[in-house]
Amino acid sequence: MSDEQGKAKAVVLLSGGLDSATVLAIALRDGFDAHALTFAYGQRHHIELKTASTIARRQGCAQHIVQSIDLRCFGGSALTDAIDVPKSGTVAEIAEGIPVTYVPARNTIFLSFALAYAEVIGSTDIFIGVNAVDYSGYPDCRPEFIKAFQSLANLATRAGAIGEAISIHAPLIHMSKAAIISKGASLGVDFGATHSCYDPDHAGLACGRCDSCLLRKEGFTQAGVPDPTKYVP
Amino acid sequence: MSDEQGKAKAVVLLSGGLDSATVLAIALRDGFDAHALTFAYGQRHHIELKTASTIARRQGCAQHIVQSIDLRCFGGSALTDAIDVPKSGTVAEIAEGIPVTYVPARNTIFLSFALAYAEVIGSTDIFIGVNAVDYSGYPDCRPEFIKAFQSLANLATRAGAIGEAISIHAPLIHMSKAAIISKGASLGVDFGATHSCYDPDHAGLACGRCDSCLLRKEGFTQAGVPDPTKYVP
Repeated sequence: MSDEQGKAKAVVLLSGGLDSATVLAIALRDGFDAHALTFAYGQRHHIELKTASTIARRQGCAQHIVQSIDLRCFGGSALTDAIDVPKSGTVAEIAEGIPVTYVPARNTIFLSFALAYAEVIGSTDIFIGVNAVDYSGYPDCRPEFIKAFQSLANLATRAGAIGEAISIHAPLIHMSKAAIISKGASLGVDFGATHSCYDPDHAGLACGRCDSCLLRKEGFTQAGVPDPTKYVP
Repeated sequence: MSDEQGKAKAVVLLSGGLDSATVLAIALRDGFDAHALTFAYGQRHHIELKTASTIARRQGCAQHIVQSIDLRCFGGSALTDAIDVPKSGTVAEIAEGIPVTYVPARNTIFLSFALAYAEVIGSTDIFIGVNAVDYSGYPDCRPEFIKAFQSLANLATRAGAIGEAISIHAPLIHMSKAAIISKGASLGVDFGATHSCYDPDHAGLACGRCDSCLLRKEGFTQAGVPDPTKYVP
Protein backbone atom coordinates (compact mmCIF):
# COMPACT_ATOMS: atom_id res chain seq x y z
CA MET A 1 0.00 0.00 0.00
CA SER A 2 1.31 3.44 -0.88
CA ASP A 3 0.73 6.77 0.82
CA GLU A 4 -0.52 9.98 -0.83
CA GLN A 5 2.85 10.62 -2.45
CA GLY A 6 2.78 7.15 -3.97
CA LYS A 7 5.56 5.86 -1.73
CA ALA A 8 5.44 2.31 -0.41
CA LYS A 9 5.46 2.08 3.38
CA ALA A 10 8.12 0.19 5.33
CA VAL A 11 8.41 -0.68 9.01
CA VAL A 12 11.95 -0.07 10.30
CA LEU A 13 13.11 -1.49 13.63
CA LEU A 14 15.00 1.36 15.29
CA SER A 15 17.05 0.83 18.43
CA GLY A 16 19.02 4.04 18.60
CA GLY A 17 22.27 2.28 17.66
CA LEU A 18 24.33 3.04 14.57
CA ASP A 19 23.24 -0.15 12.80
CA SER A 20 19.53 0.64 12.84
CA ALA A 21 20.16 4.31 12.02
CA THR A 22 22.02 3.10 8.92
CA VAL A 23 19.19 0.70 8.05
CA LEU A 24 16.71 3.56 8.33
CA ALA A 25 18.87 5.62 5.95
CA ILE A 26 18.91 2.68 3.49
CA ALA A 27 15.09 2.31 3.64
CA LEU A 28 14.67 6.03 2.97
CA ARG A 29 17.23 5.93 0.12
CA ASP A 30 15.25 3.03 -1.38
CA GLY A 31 12.23 5.33 -1.54
CA PHE A 32 10.17 3.95 1.32
CA ASP A 33 7.95 5.97 3.59
CA ALA A 34 9.55 4.84 6.88
CA HIS A 35 7.50 3.89 9.95
CA ALA A 36 9.93 3.37 12.83
CA LEU A 37 9.31 0.94 15.69
CA THR A 38 11.32 1.05 18.92
CA PHE A 39 10.98 -1.21 21.95
CA ALA A 40 11.16 -0.24 25.60
CA TYR A 41 11.92 -3.65 27.05
CA GLY A 42 13.27 -3.22 30.52
CA GLN A 43 16.58 -1.80 29.45
CA ARG A 44 18.64 -0.62 32.37
CA HIS A 45 19.04 2.74 30.67
CA HIS A 46 16.62 4.81 28.64
CA ILE A 47 19.19 6.63 26.55
CA GLU A 48 18.41 4.32 23.63
CA LEU A 49 14.76 5.43 23.56
CA LYS A 50 15.65 9.12 23.57
CA THR A 51 18.26 8.48 20.88
CA ALA A 52 15.78 6.55 18.72
CA SER A 53 13.29 9.44 18.90
CA THR A 54 15.97 11.92 17.84
CA ILE A 55 17.06 9.73 14.92
CA ALA A 56 13.47 9.10 13.75
CA ARG A 57 12.77 12.83 13.74
CA ARG A 58 16.04 13.93 12.12
CA GLN A 59 16.07 11.28 9.41
CA GLY A 60 12.42 11.96 8.54
CA CYS A 61 10.20 9.04 9.58
CA ALA A 62 6.50 9.29 8.74
CA GLN A 63 5.68 7.80 12.16
CA HIS A 64 7.58 6.52 15.21
CA ILE A 65 5.96 4.09 17.65
CA VAL A 66 7.53 3.05 20.94
CA GLN A 67 6.19 -0.32 22.07
CA SER A 68 6.64 -1.23 25.74
CA ILE A 69 7.19 -4.90 26.46
CA ASP A 70 8.43 -6.48 29.64
CA LEU A 71 11.07 -9.10 28.97
CA ARG A 72 12.21 -8.92 32.58
CA CYS A 73 9.45 -11.24 33.76
CA PHE A 74 11.26 -14.05 31.95
CA GLY A 75 14.79 -12.99 32.92
CA GLY A 76 17.78 -14.44 31.15
CA SER A 77 20.13 -11.68 29.90
CA ALA A 78 22.61 -9.03 30.97
CA LEU A 79 20.73 -6.42 28.95
CA THR A 80 17.53 -6.84 30.95
CA ASP A 81 18.76 -8.30 34.27
CA ALA A 82 20.95 -6.72 36.90
CA ILE A 83 24.02 -8.83 36.15
CA ASP A 84 27.35 -7.41 35.03
CA VAL A 85 27.95 -6.52 31.41
CA PRO A 86 31.16 -8.26 30.32
CA LYS A 87 34.19 -6.10 29.47
CA SER A 88 36.41 -8.11 27.18
CA GLY A 89 39.31 -5.66 26.83
CA THR A 90 39.79 -6.03 23.06
CA VAL A 91 37.65 -7.09 20.13
CA ALA A 92 39.75 -10.24 19.75
CA GLU A 93 38.85 -11.30 23.30
CA ILE A 94 35.07 -11.10 22.77
CA ALA A 95 33.94 -14.57 23.71
CA GLU A 96 32.75 -17.05 21.12
CA GLY A 97 29.43 -18.84 21.46
CA ILE A 98 26.16 -17.25 22.57
CA PRO A 99 26.96 -14.07 24.54
CA VAL A 100 25.59 -13.40 28.02
CA THR A 101 23.99 -10.26 26.55
CA TYR A 102 21.73 -12.45 24.40
CA VAL A 103 18.04 -11.78 25.13
CA PRO A 104 15.90 -14.91 24.60
CA ALA A 105 13.87 -14.79 21.39
CA ARG A 106 14.35 -11.02 21.16
CA ASN A 107 14.43 -10.63 17.40
CA THR A 108 11.53 -13.07 17.04
CA ILE A 109 9.47 -10.87 19.36
CA PHE A 110 10.61 -7.64 17.68
CA LEU A 111 9.83 -8.92 14.18
CA SER A 112 6.43 -10.20 15.35
CA PHE A 113 5.44 -6.72 16.48
CA ALA A 114 6.87 -5.25 13.27
CA LEU A 115 4.68 -7.70 11.36
CA ALA A 116 1.58 -6.54 13.25
CA TYR A 117 2.48 -2.90 12.57
CA ALA A 118 3.13 -3.64 8.88
CA GLU A 119 -0.19 -5.41 8.53
CA VAL A 120 -2.12 -2.53 10.09
CA ILE A 121 -0.53 0.17 7.90
CA GLY A 122 -0.66 -1.99 4.77
CA SER A 123 3.08 -2.46 4.39
CA THR A 124 4.82 -5.57 3.08
CA ASP A 125 8.39 -4.43 3.87
CA ILE A 126 10.16 -4.74 7.21
CA PHE A 127 13.74 -3.56 7.80
CA ILE A 128 15.96 -4.89 10.59
CA GLY A 129 19.61 -4.16 11.36
CA VAL A 130 20.76 -7.63 12.33
CA ASN A 131 24.33 -8.52 11.59
CA ALA A 132 25.80 -12.00 11.38
CA VAL A 133 29.45 -10.90 11.33
CA ASP A 134 30.10 -9.12 14.62
CA TYR A 135 27.26 -10.88 16.47
CA SER A 136 27.69 -14.38 15.14
CA GLY A 137 26.93 -15.80 18.59
CA TYR A 138 23.28 -14.68 18.47
CA PRO A 139 21.15 -17.41 16.88
CA ASP A 140 18.51 -14.85 15.84
CA CYS A 141 20.97 -12.73 13.81
CA ARG A 142 21.69 -15.43 11.21
CA PRO A 143 20.49 -15.25 7.59
CA GLU A 144 18.59 -18.54 7.98
CA PHE A 145 16.64 -17.05 10.88
CA ILE A 146 15.63 -14.02 8.79
CA LYS A 147 14.64 -16.29 5.92
CA ALA A 148 12.54 -18.47 8.27
CA PHE A 149 10.80 -15.40 9.68
CA GLN A 150 9.95 -14.22 6.18
CA SER A 151 8.39 -17.61 5.41
CA LEU A 152 6.42 -17.42 8.64
CA ALA A 153 5.28 -13.86 7.93
CA ASN A 154 3.83 -14.94 4.62
CA LEU A 155 1.75 -17.61 6.32
CA ALA A 156 0.79 -15.52 9.35
CA THR A 157 -0.97 -12.56 7.81
CA ARG A 158 -3.71 -11.33 5.54
CA ALA A 159 -1.07 -10.14 3.06
CA GLY A 160 0.38 -13.64 2.81
CA ALA A 161 -3.11 -15.14 2.59
CA ILE A 162 -4.02 -12.97 -0.40
CA GLY A 163 -0.71 -13.51 -2.15
CA GLU A 164 1.20 -10.30 -1.39
CA ALA A 165 4.74 -11.19 -0.48
CA ILE A 166 6.17 -9.80 2.75
CA SER A 167 9.90 -9.06 2.62
CA ILE A 168 12.19 -8.94 5.63
CA HIS A 169 15.11 -6.71 4.66
CA ALA A 170 18.35 -7.21 6.59
CA PRO A 171 20.75 -5.12 4.48
CA LEU A 172 23.59 -5.21 7.05
CA ILE A 173 23.57 -8.94 7.67
CA HIS A 174 26.84 -9.72 5.89
CA MET A 175 28.60 -6.37 6.52
CA SER A 176 31.45 -5.69 8.93
CA LYS A 177 31.03 -2.87 11.43
CA ALA A 178 33.48 -0.79 9.36
CA ALA A 179 31.43 -1.39 6.19
CA ILE A 180 28.22 -0.40 8.02
CA ILE A 181 29.87 2.81 9.22
CA SER A 182 31.12 3.60 5.69
CA LYS A 183 27.63 2.97 4.28
CA GLY A 184 25.95 5.09 6.96
CA ALA A 185 28.47 7.92 6.47
CA SER A 186 27.82 7.89 2.71
CA LEU A 187 24.08 8.23 3.40
CA GLY A 188 24.57 11.13 5.82
CA VAL A 189 23.80 9.33 9.09
CA ASP A 190 24.67 11.49 12.09
CA PHE A 191 26.54 8.88 14.14
CA GLY A 192 26.98 11.39 16.95
CA ALA A 193 23.23 11.00 17.57
CA THR A 194 23.44 7.20 17.86
CA HIS A 195 24.14 5.12 20.94
CA SER A 196 25.73 1.67 21.18
CA CYS A 197 27.11 1.29 24.73
CA TYR A 198 25.69 -1.50 26.93
CA ASP A 199 26.83 0.29 30.09
CA PRO A 200 26.74 4.10 29.82
CA ASP A 201 27.28 6.40 32.81
CA HIS A 202 24.52 8.55 34.32
CA ALA A 203 25.22 11.39 31.87
CA GLY A 204 24.86 8.96 28.95
CA LEU A 205 28.57 8.80 28.09
CA ALA A 206 29.69 5.50 26.55
CA CYS A 207 31.87 3.28 28.74
CA GLY A 208 34.31 2.56 25.88
CA ARG A 209 35.01 -0.93 27.26
CA CYS A 210 31.90 -3.12 26.73
CA ASP A 211 31.78 -5.43 23.69
CA SER A 212 29.49 -3.00 21.86
CA CYS A 213 31.82 -0.01 22.45
CA LEU A 214 34.87 -2.05 21.39
CA LEU A 215 33.25 -3.09 18.11
CA ARG A 216 32.07 0.43 17.45
CA LYS A 217 35.46 2.03 18.14
CA GLU A 218 37.30 -0.47 15.96
CA GLY A 219 34.69 0.00 13.22
CA PHE A 220 35.28 3.75 13.03
CA THR A 221 39.04 3.21 12.97
CA GLN A 222 38.86 0.62 10.18
CA ALA A 223 36.39 2.70 8.16
CA GLY A 224 38.59 5.76 8.48
CA VAL A 225 35.59 7.76 9.69
CA PRO A 226 36.04 10.10 12.69
CA ASP A 227 34.34 8.63 15.80
CA PRO A 228 31.93 11.24 17.21
CA THR A 229 31.08 9.10 20.28
CA LYS A 230 31.43 10.75 23.69
CA TYR A 231 33.24 8.31 25.97
CA VAL A 232 33.74 8.59 29.73
CA PRO A 233 37.15 10.21 30.33
CA MET B 1 15.23 -29.64 31.09
CA SER B 2 13.34 -31.42 33.87
CA ASP B 3 12.33 -30.16 37.30
CA GLU B 4 13.04 -31.88 40.65
CA GLN B 5 10.35 -34.48 40.04
CA GLY B 6 11.92 -35.34 36.69
CA LYS B 7 9.05 -33.81 34.72
CA ALA B 8 9.77 -31.95 31.49
CA LYS B 9 8.56 -28.36 31.48
CA ALA B 10 6.10 -27.00 28.95
CA VAL B 11 4.88 -23.48 28.24
CA VAL B 12 1.10 -23.39 27.74
CA LEU B 13 -0.62 -20.35 26.22
CA LEU B 14 -3.69 -19.82 28.38
CA SER B 15 -6.41 -17.36 27.38
CA GLY B 16 -9.16 -18.30 29.78
CA GLY B 17 -11.25 -19.84 27.01
CA LEU B 18 -12.32 -23.46 26.86
CA ASP B 19 -9.84 -24.32 24.09
CA SER B 20 -6.75 -23.33 26.06
CA ALA B 21 -8.11 -24.88 29.29
CA THR B 22 -8.42 -28.15 27.35
CA VAL B 23 -4.89 -27.75 25.94
CA LEU B 24 -3.59 -27.22 29.49
CA ALA B 25 -5.34 -30.44 30.58
CA ILE B 26 -3.72 -32.28 27.65
CA ALA B 27 -0.23 -30.96 28.56
CA LEU B 28 -0.73 -32.07 32.17
CA ARG B 29 -2.05 -35.47 31.07
CA ASP B 30 1.06 -35.87 28.90
CA GLY B 31 3.16 -35.50 32.04
CA PHE B 32 4.46 -31.97 31.59
CA ASP B 33 5.13 -29.49 34.36
CA ALA B 34 2.95 -26.69 32.96
CA HIS B 35 4.04 -23.05 32.91
CA ALA B 36 1.07 -20.96 31.79
CA LEU B 37 1.41 -17.70 29.87
CA THR B 38 -1.48 -15.25 29.50
CA PHE B 39 -1.51 -11.94 27.64
CA ALA B 40 -3.15 -8.69 28.71
CA TYR B 41 -3.33 -7.01 25.32
CA GLY B 42 -5.77 -4.20 25.51
CA GLN B 43 -8.84 -6.39 25.69
CA ARG B 44 -11.98 -4.43 26.28
CA HIS B 45 -12.77 -6.70 29.24
CA HIS B 46 -10.54 -8.22 31.86
CA ILE B 47 -12.69 -11.24 32.61
CA GLU B 48 -10.36 -13.39 30.52
CA LEU B 49 -7.38 -12.57 32.75
CA LYS B 50 -9.24 -13.43 35.95
CA THR B 51 -10.54 -16.61 34.34
CA ALA B 52 -7.04 -17.62 33.20
CA SER B 53 -5.70 -17.19 36.76
CA THR B 54 -8.48 -19.36 38.17
CA ILE B 55 -7.87 -22.09 35.57
CA ALA B 56 -4.08 -22.03 36.09
CA ARG B 57 -4.54 -22.42 39.84
CA ARG B 58 -7.24 -25.10 39.72
CA GLN B 59 -5.61 -27.24 37.04
CA GLY B 60 -2.25 -27.08 38.83
CA CYS B 61 0.24 -24.99 36.85
CA ALA B 62 3.77 -24.74 38.24
CA GLN B 63 3.81 -21.04 37.30
CA HIS B 64 1.49 -18.52 35.65
CA ILE B 65 2.85 -15.37 34.05
CA VAL B 66 0.67 -12.55 32.73
CA GLN B 67 2.48 -10.55 30.05
CA SER B 68 1.15 -7.08 29.26
CA ILE B 69 1.49 -5.98 25.66
CA ASP B 70 -0.19 -3.10 23.96
CA LEU B 71 -1.58 -4.07 20.58
CA ARG B 72 -3.85 -1.02 20.59
CA CYS B 73 -1.08 1.24 19.36
CA PHE B 74 -1.29 -0.57 16.02
CA GLY B 75 -5.11 -0.84 15.93
CA GLY B 76 -6.79 -3.13 13.49
CA SER B 77 -9.30 -5.44 15.22
CA ALA B 78 -12.64 -5.58 16.97
CA LEU B 79 -11.06 -7.35 19.94
CA THR B 80 -8.74 -4.45 20.71
CA ASP B 81 -10.50 -1.47 19.12
CA ALA B 82 -13.79 0.10 20.05
CA ILE B 83 -15.69 -1.17 17.00
CA ASP B 84 -18.74 -3.42 17.21
CA VAL B 85 -18.35 -7.15 17.64
CA PRO B 86 -20.36 -8.84 14.89
CA LYS B 87 -23.42 -10.86 15.90
CA SER B 88 -24.10 -13.36 13.15
CA GLY B 89 -27.28 -14.93 14.51
CA THR B 90 -26.38 -18.55 13.78
CA VAL B 91 -23.18 -20.53 13.31
CA ALA B 92 -24.03 -20.99 9.64
CA GLU B 93 -24.08 -17.21 9.13
CA ILE B 94 -20.57 -16.62 10.50
CA ALA B 95 -18.83 -14.84 7.67
CA GLU B 96 -16.21 -16.54 5.56
CA GLY B 97 -12.79 -14.98 4.98
CA ILE B 98 -10.67 -13.25 7.60
CA PRO B 99 -12.96 -12.13 10.44
CA VAL B 100 -13.08 -8.55 11.72
CA THR B 101 -12.08 -9.97 15.11
CA TYR B 102 -8.69 -10.99 13.68
CA VAL B 103 -5.80 -9.33 15.55
CA PRO B 104 -2.80 -8.69 13.27
CA ALA B 105 0.04 -11.15 13.87
CA ARG B 106 -1.42 -12.09 17.25
CA ASN B 107 -0.39 -15.73 17.36
CA THR B 108 3.07 -14.85 16.00
CA ILE B 109 3.50 -12.41 18.88
CA PHE B 110 2.08 -14.84 21.46
CA LEU B 111 4.30 -17.71 20.29
CA SER B 112 7.35 -15.41 20.28
CA PHE B 113 6.86 -14.61 23.95
CA ALA B 114 6.19 -18.28 24.68
CA LEU B 115 9.50 -19.06 22.98
CA ALA B 116 11.34 -16.55 25.19
CA TYR B 117 9.68 -18.03 28.28
CA ALA B 118 10.52 -21.59 27.17
CA GLU B 119 14.13 -20.66 26.56
CA VAL B 120 14.50 -19.08 30.01
CA ILE B 121 13.02 -22.05 31.91
CA GLY B 122 14.80 -24.61 29.73
CA SER B 123 11.70 -25.99 28.04
CA THR B 124 11.47 -27.24 24.46
CA ASP B 125 7.68 -27.73 24.41
CA ILE B 126 5.07 -25.04 23.74
CA PHE B 127 1.33 -25.74 23.71
CA ILE B 128 -1.19 -23.52 21.90
CA GLY B 129 -4.94 -23.99 21.45
CA VAL B 130 -5.27 -22.86 17.84
CA ASN B 131 -7.98 -24.45 15.78
CA ALA B 132 -8.22 -24.53 12.01
CA VAL B 133 -11.79 -25.83 11.85
CA ASP B 134 -13.99 -23.20 13.51
CA TYR B 135 -11.54 -20.35 12.88
CA SER B 136 -10.47 -21.15 9.37
CA GLY B 137 -10.48 -17.46 8.45
CA TYR B 138 -7.51 -16.66 10.72
CA PRO B 139 -4.27 -17.12 8.74
CA ASP B 140 -2.31 -17.74 11.95
CA CYS B 141 -4.46 -20.70 13.05
CA ARG B 142 -3.46 -22.93 10.11
CA PRO B 143 -1.26 -26.03 10.46
CA GLU B 144 1.29 -24.58 8.00
CA PHE B 145 1.65 -21.52 10.22
CA ILE B 146 2.35 -23.68 13.29
CA LYS B 147 4.86 -25.73 11.30
CA ALA B 148 6.61 -22.57 10.08
CA PHE B 149 6.81 -21.20 13.62
CA GLN B 150 8.37 -24.46 14.81
CA SER B 151 11.02 -24.17 12.07
CA LEU B 152 11.68 -20.58 13.09
CA ALA B 153 11.89 -21.50 16.80
CA ASN B 154 14.59 -24.03 16.05
CA LEU B 155 16.68 -21.37 14.30
CA ALA B 156 15.94 -18.57 16.77
CA THR B 157 17.16 -19.98 20.05
CA ARG B 158 20.00 -21.51 21.96
CA ALA B 159 18.11 -24.80 22.07
CA GLY B 160 17.92 -24.91 18.29
CA ALA B 161 21.57 -23.85 18.02
CA ILE B 162 22.73 -26.75 20.19
CA GLY B 163 20.48 -29.29 18.48
CA GLU B 164 17.59 -29.64 20.94
CA ALA B 165 14.36 -29.67 19.00
CA ILE B 166 11.61 -27.27 20.01
CA SER B 167 8.08 -28.61 19.48
CA ILE B 168 5.00 -26.45 19.01
CA HIS B 169 2.05 -28.59 20.12
CA ALA B 170 -1.35 -27.64 18.68
CA PRO B 171 -3.43 -30.63 19.76
CA LEU B 172 -6.80 -29.03 18.89
CA ILE B 173 -5.89 -27.87 15.41
CA HIS B 174 -8.02 -30.39 13.52
CA MET B 175 -10.78 -30.82 16.13
CA SER B 176 -14.33 -29.48 15.98
CA LYS B 177 -15.61 -27.45 18.92
CA ALA B 178 -17.71 -30.45 19.97
CA ALA B 179 -14.66 -32.74 19.89
CA ILE B 180 -12.68 -30.23 21.98
CA ILE B 181 -15.48 -30.10 24.55
CA SER B 182 -15.68 -33.91 24.67
CA LYS B 183 -11.90 -34.14 25.13
CA GLY B 184 -11.87 -31.45 27.83
CA ALA B 185 -14.78 -33.09 29.65
CA SER B 186 -12.98 -36.45 29.62
CA LEU B 187 -9.95 -34.76 31.20
CA GLY B 188 -12.01 -33.08 33.91
CA VAL B 189 -11.87 -29.49 32.66
CA ASP B 190 -14.28 -27.26 34.58
CA PHE B 191 -15.86 -25.46 31.63
CA GLY B 192 -17.90 -23.34 34.01
CA ALA B 193 -14.62 -21.59 34.91
CA THR B 194 -13.82 -20.77 31.27
CA HIS B 195 -14.86 -17.74 29.26
CA SER B 196 -15.36 -17.43 25.50
CA CYS B 197 -17.65 -14.43 24.90
CA TYR B 198 -16.28 -11.50 22.88
CA ASP B 199 -18.86 -9.14 24.36
CA PRO B 200 -19.82 -9.97 27.98
CA ASP B 201 -21.95 -7.68 30.15
CA HIS B 202 -20.59 -5.80 33.17
CA ALA B 203 -21.22 -8.76 35.47
CA GLY B 204 -19.24 -11.01 33.13
CA LEU B 205 -22.24 -12.89 31.72
CA ALA B 206 -21.79 -14.14 28.15
CA CYS B 207 -23.84 -12.37 25.45
CA GLY B 208 -24.88 -15.65 23.82
CA ARG B 209 -24.93 -14.01 20.39
CA CYS B 210 -21.34 -13.25 19.29
CA ASP B 211 -19.56 -15.72 16.99
CA SER B 212 -17.61 -17.16 19.91
CA CYS B 213 -20.76 -17.75 22.00
CA LEU B 214 -22.56 -19.31 19.02
CA LEU B 215 -19.72 -21.76 18.37
CA ARG B 216 -19.46 -22.60 22.07
CA LYS B 217 -23.21 -23.21 22.49
CA GLU B 218 -23.42 -25.40 19.41
CA GLY B 219 -20.30 -27.29 20.55
CA PHE B 220 -21.87 -28.24 23.88
CA THR B 221 -25.07 -29.32 22.15
CA GLN B 222 -23.25 -31.47 19.59
CA ALA B 223 -20.96 -32.97 22.24
CA GLY B 224 -23.94 -33.83 24.43
CA VAL B 225 -22.21 -32.12 27.37
CA PRO B 226 -24.28 -29.81 29.61
CA ASP B 227 -23.34 -26.13 28.95
CA PRO B 228 -22.40 -24.51 32.29
CA THR B 229 -22.02 -21.02 30.72
CA LYS B 230 -23.95 -18.19 32.37
CA TYR B 231 -25.62 -16.18 29.59
CA VAL B 232 -27.40 -12.83 29.93
CA PRO B 233 -31.13 -13.51 30.40
